[in-house]
This record gives sequence, structure tokens and C-alpha cells, in this order.
Amino acid sequence: MSTPIASLDTPAALVDIPQMQRNIQRMQQRMSSLGVRLRPHIKTSKCLPVIQAQIAAGASGVTVSTLKEAEHCFAAGIRDVFYAVAIAPGKLPQALALRRKGCNLSLLTDSVSGAEAMVAFAQQHDERLDVWIEIDCDGHRSGLAAQDPVLIDVARILSDGGLHLRGVMTHAGSSYALDSLEPLQALAEQERALCVRAADTLRAAGLACPEVSIGSTPTALSALNLDGVTEVRAGVYVFFDLVMRNIGVCQADELALSVLTTVIGHQPDKGWIITDAGWMAMSRDRGTQRQRQDFGYGQVCSEAGDWIDGAQVTGANQEHGIVTLGAANSDALVTRFPIGSRLRILPNHACATGAQFPDYHAVDADGSVHTWSRLHGW
Amino acid sequence: MSTPIASLDTPAALVDIPQMQRNIQRMQQRMSSLGVRLRPHIKTSKCLPVIQAQIAAGASGVTVSTLKEAEHCFAAGIRDVFYAVAIAPGKLPQALALRRKGCNLSLLTDSVSGAEAMVAFAQQHDERLDVWIEIDCDGHRSGLAAQDPVLIDVARILSDGGLHLRGVMTHAGSSYALDSLEPLQALAEQERALCVRAADTLRAAGLACPEVSIGSTPTALSALNLDGVTEVRAGVYVFFDLVMRNIGVCQADELALSVLTTVIGHQPDKGWIITDAGWMAMSRDRGTQRQRQDFGYGQVCSEAGDWIDGAQVTGANQEHGIVTLGAANSDALVTRFPIGSRLRILPNHACATGAQFPDYHAVDADGSVHTWSRLHGW
Repeated sequence: MSTPIASLDTPAALVDIPQMQRNIQRMQQRMSSLGVRLRPHIKTSKCLPVIQAQIAAGASGVTVSTLKEAEHCFAAGIRDVFYAVAIAPGKLPQALALRRKGCNLSLLTDSVSGAEAMVAFAQQHDERLDVWIEIDCDGHRSGLAAQDPVLIDVARILSDGGLHLRGVMTHAGSSYALDSLEPLQALAEQERALCVRAADTLRAAGLACPEVSIGSTPTALSALNLDGVTEVRAGVYVFFDLVMRNIGVCQADELALSVLTTVIGHQPDKGWIITDAGWMAMSRDRGTQRQRQDFGYGQVCSEAGDWIDGAQVTGANQEHGIVTLGAANSDALVTRFPIGSRLRILPNHACATGAQFPDYHAVDADGSVHTWSRLHGW
Repeated sequence: MSTPIASLDTPAALVDIPQMQRNIQRMQQRMSSLGVRLRPHIKTSKCLPVIQAQIAAGASGVTVSTLKEAEHCFAAGIRDVFYAVAIAPGKLPQALALRRKGCNLSLLTDSVSGAEAMVAFAQQHDERLDVWIEIDCDGHRSGLAAQDPVLIDVARILSDGGLHLRGVMTHAGSSYALDSLEPLQALAEQERALCVRAADTLRAAGLACPEVSIGSTPTALSALNLDGVTEVRAGVYVFFDLVMRNIGVCQADELALSVLTTVIGHQPDKGWIITDAGWMAMSRDRGTQRQRQDFGYGQVCSEAGDWIDGAQVTGANQEHGIVTLGAANSDALVTRFPIGSRLRILPNHACATGAQFPDYHAVDADGSVHTWSRLHGW
């Protein structure tokens, strides 16, 4: 009997369900043992069966990166949704519509202007929006510094405007630039301490700040304590990827997402195998380029998923991948990997690679394959 | 009256229809004046109204990068379709099904093994497949060298197997690494000459080789003559992008695709504007990184499309773009570009950026906006 995977057209995005479940359990158990709720960031999968597995394992609500994700989750019965991108004022009507349907959608701001826009909109529509304030814990992107006096201004605008200040949140995105335990632990502590400090600043000013939400996959898996934190947001842990492997928070055999591809040609003189997984399948993400091990556009495995040492996707055009095997494997290129044979590629960045596919093909422990659709666009 | 663009949610992929039409006319007229047919590569747009504009302007059939594109074009009445990726044997049944519906779908190979698989399949199904042989003109990817004796072997396998050898094709993909006229002209001549030589080699061996198909946007716009060539394939010219601008085959004001984005925050101390067009909107393509001018994740323009000198998307997270304005524009960051204001970003690579969106929003000369869906996945 042929396995179901063999009948899939390529390129295909494969999810290893048992490995995904182990990844979900690992993070959930870690958060439970540290005494915090886990609010997974579903921007990685954008896929309902994955999200439902996270909820079933104990997650408390979800984090989303688009209102489309929020609508999709709510339609599936998930009510507690945090849209963790500072909202553009033009999106407030869409957010309101979702709240009016019964979704407990909370929003984010990091500015006086943003807070004022929310208050004006909320008062116009007689709606008590739930709002978080974004804290900058590492200088990598958005947010107010914990000691910035504007933090109290923003909180007061929200509070005086009758909105519900849910709490403060931060994301230690600079953790992606680290690759050893002590700096990761130090950044995790910085993320925790600065966000707690921001909450304490608000409380000292007489403002309610019930929640402290932090998180990134590398810091969540490195933190030694989460005192003062109420919830952690993390996303890519559900699949992991080569970037996470280089950072050191997962092993190579914990990656749950791969791209199935077919060999369509060879250039034997150059030691190249040509596949049908180009950048349209892998994405253009070169996240490992500046890490300790550069995997090109992905690490090459056998069809069964066994890592082939030194084999990488070293080049990619839109629908062509160029695979080189490394010195130890370059003999007998054509006979070992004939046209029509298949390989699996582990991606640099699961969020980016997943986004290239309308569906995942999720493989169960018994080898059966399920088609799981995922969201595309905004 | 507010303009229709103002009512679009962001991020949105905008197509400037009049500019697209000028780009289409430019390439079509050039090919007509050089005496060859144009078979546009629709992998750039994957969008029917764009393709139909190319056909209306005189294109002869289409080139596709996936069988899904082929099916989509055929369903819209386009019969002459060239799938210009060496076909994986497992996709032959899908190709056959499309031919049996009446599509004149032609296929590609560059190997004995690929040719044998086609012959075996064709004989099993009593179908005379149309097949091209891929020639390698610059060592950048796939194809057989024009002087490779395997070329005649492959052609003979196809011919003896009863298949219809349409001709030889090549793609000078290394043109993307050039940026001045003389080397582009030289590569265009190399592309032409080697593909014609391959055809002549087959003809000298007594094999029919009616067609010679070459092309890339940079070489098509640089070639001085196309003697012996019957058709040119090119794709990205329909929109152009910053990579093409750096190569020198278009001007900055000829780019027809841009991403509309909203300002969602600022980090004034760093000179950053935060927008809602991160890499999910722009793609991870950093095609200008090694060119003469690196545009980061894109060149920033005003909402109306006016280039802001020195302003670039210098960083990108999934749903956050970090815009820096350059020395001349960094004053009064917050007041000039307040939260809720809009910008347009010109992409590095139109094929990659377009693929991030389910739809284009196509803007006509009168400012009216049409929603044009595009293909996603395989």
C-alpha cells in the first residue's frame, strides 16, 4: 500500500501532527509550571485545527496579527482575542463590529494619538473598548519605554475616556538575534522586569493595570521566573524552524513543518539537484543568513524526513529550488536522487513558509493526511 | 469627494492600470519591432485582467510557472499555454487532463529521464504531447548546454517516442545580476545565440525544431536583434519593480505595483515610522540587497505615489514595517506622518510582493478602484 504522502502533489506544506502536539505540550507545561497563562500567537499557523489543538492543551485565548485572524477565530468559537498590533484608526469599525457580535477582542496602542483615536471612536459608538499598552523592552520595534512619562499619559487618556485598560504588553523580538542560554535568560528577565515595571508605574499613579503580557518563543523557553507576569504570548514554537534551532530553543528533530518537493532536474557538473520548491514555496526568508549556521533556503531531508547532512537549498527561483548536497553526499547525484524522487525541506522560518501555502497537509501518527486550510491576506 | 483609494483597508496591493498598460505596450511594441512573438510569463501577476490586457495588446499565448496557472488561463479561454518548468512526472496526469479539455499545453524537459517519462506516459495514454527542451545559456539554473550531446539524445527520445518537439527554450536569469547596458546587450546576444545554436544542432541532426523561445525582462529590453528567435518570454515587465530599476531597464516612475500602508506608530528617537506593511505584505524578498542601490524592504512614497528621497522600509516584522526617512526628511516625523496617515511602498520584486495578496486593487485613470483576484498556491 502506498502511503498517502506519496499521493500529494508538490510542493506541499507538511505538518507532523505528533511533533506539533509535543511542541504544544512543551510550551503549555512550561507556562503552567511558571504560573502564567499561555495566549498563543496564531500568526504562525493561521490554521484552525492547529489553534484548536493549542486551546485543547490549555491555552487561554489567542493572539492575532490581523483582524481577519480575529474574525476567523471568533467564528470558530474562540472569544478571547488579542489583536497585538497597534491598531490603525481606520480599522476601528471592523474591530467594533467583531465586539458587537460578542467577541472579547482587545486592542493595542503605544501613543497618545492612538489612544485619543480610540477614545473618540469608543465614545462616538458608546463602546467600552479593551485596550493594552505596548511597552518597548529591547528597542527592536514598537512600544513605550517603561520609564517614559508618556506611558502614564496614554493610560490616563484611556482610563479617563472610559476605556478598559487591560494591562501592559511587550515582545522581546531581539531574542531572535541570540543563540546561547545565558543571554536568552538575561533577555527573558529584561522582558519580564521592564513590563512588570511599566505595570507598577501605572499602578503607582493610581491606574488599574490588571495584566502583564510578555513573550516570544525564545524568551518564553528561557525564562527562569515570570513573577508579576499574567500571560505569555508565543507563536512559532508550535512548529519551530531552523531559526529557532540556531537560537538553541529546539532540536533539529522538533521541527513540525516541512515542504515536500519533487526532483525535476540535475546539473551534475555543479552538484545541483533542481526541485519544484523554489522561493514561492519556501518564501524568501533567509533568517538563518546571519546565524551560526546558514541553511540557505532550507535544510534538505529525505522524503521520510531524515536530515541529510550538508544538504541545503542553496538557491531559489520562483518555482525552482537548487539543492546542493555537501561534500559527503555529492557522489551519484542523479542515481541517488532521480527525477521524480522526493525530498523534504525544513524551512528557515515557519511563519513565512506557511504563508506561501493555501493549505497544510497534516500527517497523523498512522500516516493519514488531513488537509488543513489556512488564512491568506488581510 | 473622497477618493476610492482612501476607503481601502491596508495593507493593499495597488496596480496603476495606466502605467501597467504602458509597460505592456512598451514590451509588445519592442517584440513586434524585433519580429518575434511575445508570450508573457504570467507568474508575475497570476491575475486574469492583467493577462487579458497582455493578450489584447498582441501577446501570443502565455507562459506559466504552475499547472494551476495553466488551468486558470485555459478556463478563461487562453488555449496556447507553455508550462515552462521541467515537469515532475507525477504532474503528467494533470497536464493530460488539461490537454484533453482542449488546451494546447506544452511541456518542458532537460533530461533523458524526463523525456523518457513523458514518452512512456504519452504512449500509455495515446497522447502526442507538445514538448520543449530547456537550454542553459548562462549557467544560472536548469537546462542543457547548447553543445551537450545529450541534447540530441533527448530530442531523439521525444521524436522517436512520437511526441511533438516544439522547439528549444532558454532563460537568461543571470541578467538579474547586471546593471549596465553593454553587459545586458552582450547577455541578450548570448541568450539568443546559444538557443539558436541549440536549434541548429538539432536541425543538423535531422530533427525538427520549429521554435526558439528565449527571454527575461532585462534581456528582452536590451537585445539588439533576435535573429532566429520565434518568441520571447518575459514576466516582470508588466509591473516592473526596484530590482528592474536597479538593473536599468525601467525608470522609477514606471513601477505599476505598490503597497498601500497606514502609519500605526513612531519611535521618534530612532527616526522610525511604524507601518502596517511588514514582510507579510512586502514579502521577504531583498532583491536589491546586492544591487547598486539597496532599498531595504521597499522605497517609500507618499499616498499619492510621489517618491520620498531616502525613505525606505529598513526593517520588517510580520505585520510591522519600520520606515526611516533619510537625513533630508527626518524632521517632524510625527507631525508630517501622523498615525492613520498613509504611504505607498514600491517593492523590490513584484512577483514576490504580489504573491502575498489574495487581490490587487487596480486603480484606473479616473481613480476608480477594481478588485482583481489572483492565484495562490499550486
